[in-house]
Amino acid sequence: MPTMTLKKKNVKASLKKSVYFFGGGKADGNESMKNLLGGKGANLAEMAGHKNLRLPVPPGFTITTEVCAYYYQNGKKYPAGLKEHVLAALKKIEALMDRRFGDPENPLLVSVRSGARRSMPGMMETVLNVGLTQTTIPGLVKQSNGNERFVYDAYRRLIMMYSDVVMEKAAGIEPKEDMGIRRRLEHLMNELKKEKGYKQDTDMNVPDLKNLCALFKAKIKETLGKEFPDDPHEQLWGGIGAVFSSWNGKRAISYRRIEGIPDEWGTAVNVQAMVFGNMGDDSATGVAFTRNPGTGENGFYGEYLINAQGEDVVAGIRTPAPVNEYSKSEHNKEMVTLEKGMPHLYKELYNYQRRLEKHYHDMQDIEFTIEKDRLFMLQCRVGKRNGPAAVRMAVEMCRERLIDAKTAVSRVTPAQLDELLHPILDPAAEKKAAHIAKGLPAGPGGACGQVVFTAEDAVNWAKTGKKVILVREETNPEDIEGMRAAQAILTARGGMTSHAALVARGWGKCCVVGAGALDVNAHAKTFSVNGTTVREGDFISLNGSKGVVYQGRLPMVVGSEDNPNFAAFMKLCDQLRKLGVRANADTPDDAKKALQFGAEGIGLFRTEHMFYGKGAEEPLFKLRKMILSADEKERRTALNELFTHVKADIKATLEAMAGKPVTIRLIDPPLHEFVPRRPEEQKRLADSLGITVQDIEERAQTLHESNPMMGHRGVRLGITYPEVSEMWVRAIFEAAAELNKEGKKALPEIMIPVTCDVKEITHQQEIVKRIHSEAAAKFSVKQIPHLFGTMIEIPRAALLAHEMAEVCEFFSYGTNDLTQMTYGFSRDDIGAFVPDYVEKKILPNDPFNTLDQKAVGELINIGIKRGRSKRAHLKVGICGEHGGDPKSISFCHHAGMNYVSCSPYRVPIARLAAAQAALEDRKN
Amino acid sequence: MPTMTLKKKNVKASLKKSVYFFGGGKADGNESMKNLLGGKGANLAEMAGHKNLRLPVPPGFTITTEVCAYYYQNGKKYPAGLKEHVLAALKKIEALMDRRFGDPENPLLVSVRSGARRSMPGMMETVLNVGLTQTTIPGLVKQSNGNERFVYDAYRRLIMMYSDVVMEKAAGIEPKEDMGIRRRLEHLMNELKKEKGYKQDTDMNVPDLKNLCALFKAKIKETLGKEFPDDPHEQLWGGIGAVFSSWNGKRAISYRRIEGIPDEWGTAVNVQAMVFGNMGDDSATGVAFTRNPGTGENGFYGEYLINAQGEDVVAGIRTPAPVNEYSKSEHNKEMVTLEKGMPHLYKELYNYQRRLEKHYHDMQDIEFTIEKDRLFMLQCRVGKRNGPAAVRMAVEMCRERLIDAKTAVSRVTPAQLDELLHPILDPAAEKKAAHIAKGLPAGPGGACGQVVFTAEDAVNWAKTGKKVILVREETNPEDIEGMRAAQAILTARGGMTSHAALVARGWGKCCVVGAGALDVNAHAKTFSVNGTTVREGDFISLNGSKGVVYQGRLPMVVGSEDNPNFAAFMKLCDQLRKLGVRANADTPDDAKKALQFGAEGIGLFRTEHMFYGKGAEEPLFKLRKMILSADEKERRTALNELFTHVKADIKATLEAMAGKPVTIRLIDPPLHEFVPRRPEEQKRLADSLGITVQDIEERAQTLHESNPMMGHRGVRLGITYPEVSEMWVRAIFEAAAELNKEGKKALPEIMIPVTCDVKEITHQQEIVKRIHSEAAAKFSVKQIPHLFGTMIEIPRAALLAHEMAEVCEFFSYGTNDLTQMTYGFSRDDIGAFVPDYVEKKILPNDPFNTLDQKAVGELINIGIKRGRSKRAHLKVGICGEHGGDPKSISFCHHAGMNYVSCSPYRVPIARLAAAQAALEDRKN
Repeated sequence: MPTMTLKKKNVKASLKKSVYFFGGGKADGNESMKNLLGGKGANLAEMAGHKNLRLPVPPGFTITTEVCAYYYQNGKKYPAGLKEHVLAALKKIEALMDRRFGDPENPLLVSVRSGARRSMPGMMETVLNVGLTQTTIPGLVKQSNGNERFVYDAYRRLIMMYSDVVMEKAAGIEPKEDMGIRRRLEHLMNELKKEKGYKQDTDMNVPDLKNLCALFKAKIKETLGKEFPDDPHEQLWGGIGAVFSSWNGKRAISYRRIEGIPDEWGTAVNVQAMVFGNMGDDSATGVAFTRNPGTGENGFYGEYLINAQGEDVVAGIRTPAPVNEYSKSEHNKEMVTLEKGMPHLYKELYNYQRRLEKHYHDMQDIEFTIEKDRLFMLQCRVGKRNGPAAVRMAVEMCRERLIDAKTAVSRVTPAQLDELLHPILDPAAEKKAAHIAKGLPAGPGGACGQVVFTAEDAVNWAKTGKKVILVREETNPEDIEGMRAAQAILTARGGMTSHAALVARGWGKCCVVGAGALDVNAHAKTFSVNGTTVREGDFISLNGSKGVVYQGRLPMVVGSEDNPNFAAFMKLCDQLRKLGVRANADTPDDAKKALQFGAEGIGLFRTEHMFYGKGAEEPLFKLRKMILSADEKERRTALNELFTHVKADIKATLEAMAGKPVTIRLIDPPLHEFVPRRPEEQKRLADSLGITVQDIEERAQTLHESNPMMGHRGVRLGITYPEVSEMWVRAIFEAAAELNKEGKKALPEIMIPVTCDVKEITHQQEIVKRIHSEAAAKFSVKQIPHLFGTMIEIPRAALLAHEMAEVCEFFSYGTNDLTQMTYGFSRDDIGAFVPDYVEKKILPNDPFNTLDQKAVGELINIGIKRGRSKRAHLKVGICGEHGGDPKSISFCHHAGMNYVSCSPYRVPIARLAAAQAALEDRKN
Repeated sequence: MPTMTLKKKNVKASLKKSVYFFGGGKADGNESMKNLLGGKGANLAEMAGHKNLRLPVPPGFTITTEVCAYYYQNGKKYPAGLKEHVLAALKKIEALMDRRFGDPENPLLVSVRSGARRSMPGMMETVLNVGLTQTTIPGLVKQSNGNERFVYDAYRRLIMMYSDVVMEKAAGIEPKEDMGIRRRLEHLMNELKKEKGYKQDTDMNVPDLKNLCALFKAKIKETLGKEFPDDPHEQLWGGIGAVFSSWNGKRAISYRRIEGIPDEWGTAVNVQAMVFGNMGDDSATGVAFTRNPGTGENGFYGEYLINAQGEDVVAGIRTPAPVNEYSKSEHNKEMVTLEKGMPHLYKELYNYQRRLEKHYHDMQDIEFTIEKDRLFMLQCRVGKRNGPAAVRMAVEMCRERLIDAKTAVSRVTPAQLDELLHPILDPAAEKKAAHIAKGLPAGPGGACGQVVFTAEDAVNWAKTGKKVILVREETNPEDIEGMRAAQAILTARGGMTSHAALVARGWGKCCVVGAGALDVNAHAKTFSVNGTTVREGDFISLNGSKGVVYQGRLPMVVGSEDNPNFAAFMKLCDQLRKLGVRANADTPDDAKKALQFGAEGIGLFRTEHMFYGKGAEEPLFKLRKMILSADEKERRTALNELFTHVKADIKATLEAMAGKPVTIRLIDPPLHEFVPRRPEEQKRLADSLGITVQDIEERAQTLHESNPMMGHRGVRLGITYPEVSEMWVRAIFEAAAELNKEGKKALPEIMIPVTCDVKEITHQQEIVKRIHSEAAAKFSVKQIPHLFGTMIEIPRAALLAHEMAEVCEFFSYGTNDLTQMTYGFSRDDIGAFVPDYVEKKILPNDPFNTLDQKAVGELINIGIKRGRSKRAHLKVGICGEHGGDPKSISFCHHAGMNYVSCSPYRVPIARLAAAQAALEDRKN
């Protein structure tokens, strides 16, 4: 809305100047005028006119985006005076090119291109060779030294493009029988080629092309009921109108919806003198990068084609040659480089690209054309790069003092950094492949492997060296070894908090869960999905970062965890960021990985995770005994048996963190989650408790809940069964005290989950104080260093944070649960409607992926403000999965948190995002 | 805490005056000094000293509550000067009574009693006959005209009381072998009576009593190691100390915890001249009420006993006589009234009680004693009354201009009003009975009946005229007829939102759900609970307002719905209240009931309730077809079939409300709730859809959710299946339009449930607008009057209320869900921990019964403030069950809501609570 207002004002204020000229070492505009001239127009002006550049850009002019806005606000009419301004600018081009528009002897041809504020590649229209008519054809033949083939080829291209873009699309004519004019003309051309036995377009000779142009014109008359215009000015204004029209074409509108580009922005139109790379062997065209976009190395890297047009390089019909030795590859190493073939032009180009990088302080993507031995610069823009290249360029440019540290940090997106941390499916291959199913992105990176349906098979196949993907309806703790052995995990059920998702995220393993369309038949060892059946041993590929499943083997791109620039880049980030970064880690191994990734502590140690995975059978069995105890006495007995395991587990993690803080959450999930389902396990448990299997089932039944997420869990367990909290707290204190006795540091932070009232916390605090005294006495020390705090994950806790802070030394926001309660969304059940919500734009995204700053964010802000009103130095962090999401991390920074905590594999991302958030501070 | 501060200040500022005298037509204190003198002391001072009263109160003095505070703050020492003040006051009593404390000839005896700011009946100690010693006994014999039996009986009572209260309890002596001194002395007395063959205490003659006193003293020496004191002053100070001590006795402390009385308040001590109603046939004692406490009628009502002490009237050993004709009952109609037996004293008493009621402007509960033909007034206080009496008194006193309307309204508690609306278990009987189980109070009132275990049995037994209580593990829609036939419903499972609870509340039927201790065996037609087995046909009784289950038949107290004063009282309430009162009603019958109870509209019409109950088979079947449809086409077919039913249902309710607003909520619960479980129903459905039963099960399985409360429900259904919203909205508009055509008024308010984002509402609003246009066109009208709004029941909706209010004409707070999300409590699962929370004082009460003003209340306030910031006249109501809870209604009033909505049976309560809330405004 503000944009609209601004726009209207601008339209009135500055409509005087609607055409900006560039060329001949001068320009009316410059790079800073992207809003008015579009990205393309602004960059052309900069290249042409800036005193440090003044590159040989074919002269031209830009009709502003304001004209576009005017055009749509005034029933598709142009503002008064536009025609005159355009004609005047055209005169300037004529002067600089020493050619005249429509001149039979020495004609000027122009291109008409779109150019919006932000790049919308391929979404709008272009018309080339405008100005070519029956009258001007002879003049162009003369210019090209009698190259009639070139001229008639240009003419047939103009006819095809113009009839499609201007005469059909912009005129709003619906194609008959769903076949557009372009396809009809292509059909004519293919028939001619067939008739003559030609394979390539270039096989057509001059008479063929002349014949074709005539056929084209007749077909156009027949189909569209109008003549192809033979007046250069009619062609020009047709082209301009078509570009403005294409702003509201279907493709452009839907692209804007997806990218969030406002309709009011509009496009500029760039009219520029045509130059031709296909005028003979002294002509050429090419694209180049000022540094290697694949590796980031500081080398001039590019390709070119002799006697070709720009689109031929992109189209990939001919193999382009390397511009220099550095750009050679296996495919083109025998070809003549530009450096060798046209050394003076290469030198000129090389100097220009150096100048451009220095001027723009970033790697540039350049298009150039050589027309009859003369170099023209057609475009420059910031070059796209992959993750490793982005990191390397940032680090090296900073070292070269081309940019400062802040700029270096801002140059790498979190997604690019992530590429260094996980192998991923090759994005190019993914673009071409059709997925067979979608699910939730539960574990990062990509994977490719053979399907197996049981944990046992996963283990056995993996032993023989096969890469497998474990496919299950749902996983459970008994599948853990198979999950570990597999490259990736795919489940048909379960949400982002399901067993598979939790385990995979903890390991940084690729995982897709809740792919509901999958019909898994573990017995038959097949799964079917939308009519496709996949059998054991078949290959599938997963994109765990997006939750997509592909059939077959997609190529992988391996990340470079040991990238030498990675550490240097992280150091830059760490210098800038203010937010601490911790990891969510549940085992000593996780803790080590977290340290390796630069975590400054553990923000969430989920004690219940010791009951999953290898070696968990005994602790799990004892936990189950505890859960199914009939009374406090039985429960205390089971807890005593469990104590040793819990203490050992906590001690190992505290030791791994060597004195860095470890936030240990007391037991959180509803107990029924651990109840055994398999008969043999029920039997063993029944025997051990001296009861029947039926008793087990009955006791389990009483634990059943309608909405376990809001049921008997977290601190609620610790209040009904204080002895459970006691055991865990004792394990924490004794583990820490033992380490202290061994001369090691340990800093446990005891965290109470799922609280909604300060009295829950004081209740648990009494237990903590009592057990602390007992443990301190046992180890003959005054004090076992520790902190005491709570999760803030229930809206009421956030609202009553001032009360909570009276007894808590720290808060840790559990934004998974806080999002659930704030939205009333069960994370395990959103599959039924949230995808639909996002598609219908009711929600901008899944609020479990990116923190909702409006409401969840307000509760966080309220909690911090009220908490710190009672305890100024209250430590505040986040341990929900938003802690690894860059946008959410930015929010946490601005909210004044002390740290974020995320999975070990997200720690580098978080360090980067925290640094980028700190940069925003300076901007504002 | 403020009390404490105030207290300390007071202690210092006014300790000069620690003793307040009353008697002889004067008093140092008055009724307004309850904080200082306690309730008893203040009332005694008022009766004795106020110029309008000056009643013959035995003279005495009050030691202030500040002394008590001082006593506890100073290591149980008295402030300086207290002894002197007490002695001085004692002298005044002596003068007025013309007797002297400790005098052998004409001794003064005194009572020492507690008296706190608020009555704590039976929680603290009393010592009577203080001053009776070996020395003064002869003097008392003389005063009583030689009645030695009277004197020695008084002496043995003093010894028993004093040894217990002063020598044991106040001294902090732990009873040996768990047997206190009082029981030991009683044992001695019983042995003596057994030995002599006496049945009653009064059988003992003077030698017996003398002997007993000696035995008592010896036992005291032996047990407590101290002599019973024979010094009157030692007795007096012992008594005073014992009363102060009893403030911190176990009983008193636990009573204060329950009633929320601060520990700092302390008790006063009242020392007063003893007068004796048991000095002969010219003596008597009695209690009376200035109006009939059972009916509220304006008649002087009381009982008395000749030659008896006050405690004898209460103890019920002898049948008391009526004070006048009016007070006669079946049991005592032959006895001599005070009016007849002592006409001059009756006349005096009658005048006093008139004076007291006029003075206090309320019905008074009076104690009096006649000692040797002389009337003494011992106590007066506001008399307790039952519900019907409270309403009648309020109405009549207002009519008599004894009180104004505001006072009248403030005189009736919501619980008293509720007594008029439901039959209840006799509270007296309930007090004595032991419950066999507890559950959740799901439906109001009480019930008593024979247990049946199936709906069929309930219907059949009821046909034969039996009163039955339907006991089920859980109920479901198929039980509906049995539920209707039964007096009450009892279930072992399910929460306050379970089927049984919803249905029973809607009907105002007594219901207890989730009595988890019950083991129901419907097959064997028994249930067992804690070792008791109850069989079909056995009687049980339920208190549905408290959730208690009793074995056997408890007597019922029938409410008086047609109480003639009820309407008059409601009118008083309606004059005062500002808050509107609506009802939650789901059927035309409910709507009629709601109107009858004074509802001004329907605040919540739950459309899904048409699928429960009689005649619901067809609609339910069609709903199920819709739910299990495989695609939009199938779904639209089923919806079309359903349309007629839905329209008819809505139309009937709109018609019943005759133009009063009816808030119709679009379908709310998760669809899987309606999926059929019974094989024959699954079969019928499968046949109708042309699929297999297995298909039905599979489709049902895909609807399964982990946490349905936060799943695919409410507006989320309307967004994924817009055709569902369409059908309901069309039914609403066509129902209203048809009524309009018939010349009837209809005002539907379309309400979107479970929203968390304004875009959900705009999405649904588009549907509403479109269907409105279509319906208006169909009925050829411009406009079908309606409002459009949303439930606010998700925290995010409250926080974003400013956005919601842009498109909503009203908000209705769904505080059931809002409480669930704000606390993270699933209402169906709180049974596992909330009772424990309340018991451990972590929560003051179940937040689903009384609205949590701290956090849920803040969200409500935020929502109203932000909502009205965008739409000043936004209509705001509440439709959660808190809408029927008086404390919560008070909150709603102060929050500025327009109305509350509750079950029809709670409407009168809500009208009263709203009026009382409005009264609070004037106070503040």
